[in-house]
Amino acid sequence: MHICSHSNDVRQRVAMWQGEGLSVGLVPTMGYLHRGHASLIEAAARENDRVVVSIFVNPLQFGATEDLASYPRDLSRDTEVCRQGGASLIFNPSPDELYPEGFCSYVNMEGGPSLGLCGASRPGHFRGVCTVVAKLLHLVQPHRAYFGQKDAQQLAVIRRMVLDLNLPTAIVGCPIVREPDGLALSSRNSYLSAEERRAALCIYEGLLAGKSLVEAGEAGTEAVLRAVSTRIEAEPLARIDYLALVDPLDMRPVQTLNEPALCATAVYIGTTRLIDNLLLKS
Amino acid sequence: MHICSHSNDVRQRVAMWQGEGLSVGLVPTMGYLHRGHASLIEAAARENDRVVVSIFVNPLQFGATEDLASYPRDLSRDTEVCRQGGASLIFNPSPDELYPEGFCSYVNMEGGPSLGLCGASRPGHFRGVCTVVAKLLHLVQPHRAYFGQKDAQQLAVIRRMVLDLNLPTAIVGCPIVREPDGLALSSRNSYLSAEERRAALCIYEGLLAGKSLVEAGEAGTEAVLRAVSTRIEAEPLARIDYLALVDPLDMRPVQTLNEPALCATAVYIGTTRLIDNLLLKS
Repeated sequence: MHICSHSNDVRQRVAMWQGEGLSVGLVPTMGYLHRGHASLIEAAARENDRVVVSIFVNPLQFGATEDLASYPRDLSRDTEVCRQGGASLIFNPSPDELYPEGFCSYVNMEGGPSLGLCGASRPGHFRGVCTVVAKLLHLVQPHRAYFGQKDAQQLAVIRRMVLDLNLPTAIVGCPIVREPDGLALSSRNSYLSAEERRAALCIYEGLLAGKSLVEAGEAGTEAVLRAVSTRIEAEPLARIDYLALVDPLDMRPVQTLNEPALCATAVYIGTTRLIDNLLLKS
Repeated sequence: MHICSHSNDVRQRVAMWQGEGLSVGLVPTMGYLHRGHASLIEAAARENDRVVVSIFVNPLQFGATEDLASYPRDLSRDTEVCRQGGASLIFNPSPDELYPEGFCSYVNMEGGPSLGLCGASRPGHFRGVCTVVAKLLHLVQPHRAYFGQKDAQQLAVIRRMVLDLNLPTAIVGCPIVREPDGLALSSRNSYLSAEERRAALCIYEGLLAGKSLVEAGEAGTEAVLRAVSTRIEAEPLARIDYLALVDPLDMRPVQTLNEPALCATAVYIGTTRLIDNLLLKS
């Protein structure tokens, strides 16, 4: 397995593979890899001849007051996760490599699935995501790129961007991986104290409470959202950033639960902002 | 030579060529092709095994008060120009094909070479240009794409976009083609009455007046710009939209003529807005 930090090295290596007729899968990550990322790498390794994992804490998708500086990093552990997952190459560029002096071109989503949820809470976030993903897709030119369903809105935004801009890569979404107690895996879970870690379970339990209600026949969105928020807010360390029932494809709020509905939420546990989601109606 | 109006048809045909190891050149145009376009197609045919010419009057790069509806169109004549130039395929999509319902992803340049000149006169113009060119580059995945130096700022913007977003296509700029009397070829020249056509020559003569002054040793930008504007404004039908001396790569205003300088101008001849440029110092 190779580790490249320069764009040209990645391009050359991928060109060599493509010259041999090998298929290439890309797993874009911000590193500090957990079993969720491992599941993406493994899926990519099953479906492609070669797998590129990018590890890049993308400054462009962080707001000025967000956790760019403290975002956890551990390249040696990440390397091991990539190796075990079957990756062929790690692309680990510096910010200057991807955003050199004079950089001024951005991919931006104006509306569509980028509205609301994280798009509302984190202005500029999806401009950063779309720009870096477009760059990585251009650099690696993969046949398939893999993203976790945990970032449901990100997945919807990337699917829309790829469709709108005619990018030739297939986008593959993979299921959320959870801890045994149900907490969705996230690199940001490392910020949690023991007490916060216990408290964070309220998020998944809230989503499950909503799902139970829907399965019992409740079709009103207000009642379902109330059930979810009641469970989350029962936890003193939790503060809801957003909570919504949305269409799983275009992320627009749904009016009833007679149509497909994803319950998506962002919750502060102490100062750590975690996101999670669950399909309540398919 | 084939004519495709659907993206998937273009993609399939290009994939076939690339599977055979053939190189592909792309010439993006808005149609109503003249000898300037023909020179791009011929350059692409010399340097690539196959040439795709796109013909698409891109609504996204026109302002609300601009000439989208009246922009000249003549597909049968264009087809003949493409055939004679050595094109293999014309891509002639409808607006709905490239901008289907729900379309919301844009490539935008925030600053850099998109500032000033047409970027100032035509808000949103380069967002439209960058978005459609990115889409065409994704669809055709050409080895090289060809643009005329007549749209000097567009060429600089596209070079910057390709660099910033790591697009794998080489951008080739081709010289301006002029009428025997010096008027730069443009599809919009068809708007000119006989009197306007005669008047329009002031643009190139103005640029030549500036060049003469520089060749005589003048290094002051104000004196040179005055020489150009004096010649243009001697023509009663002409009204200068902008006139500037800029760096040929990043389109920033130059302070002296001791460095490379392009004189770029947009001039209304009656109601027709024409652009032209000349390198005064290399």
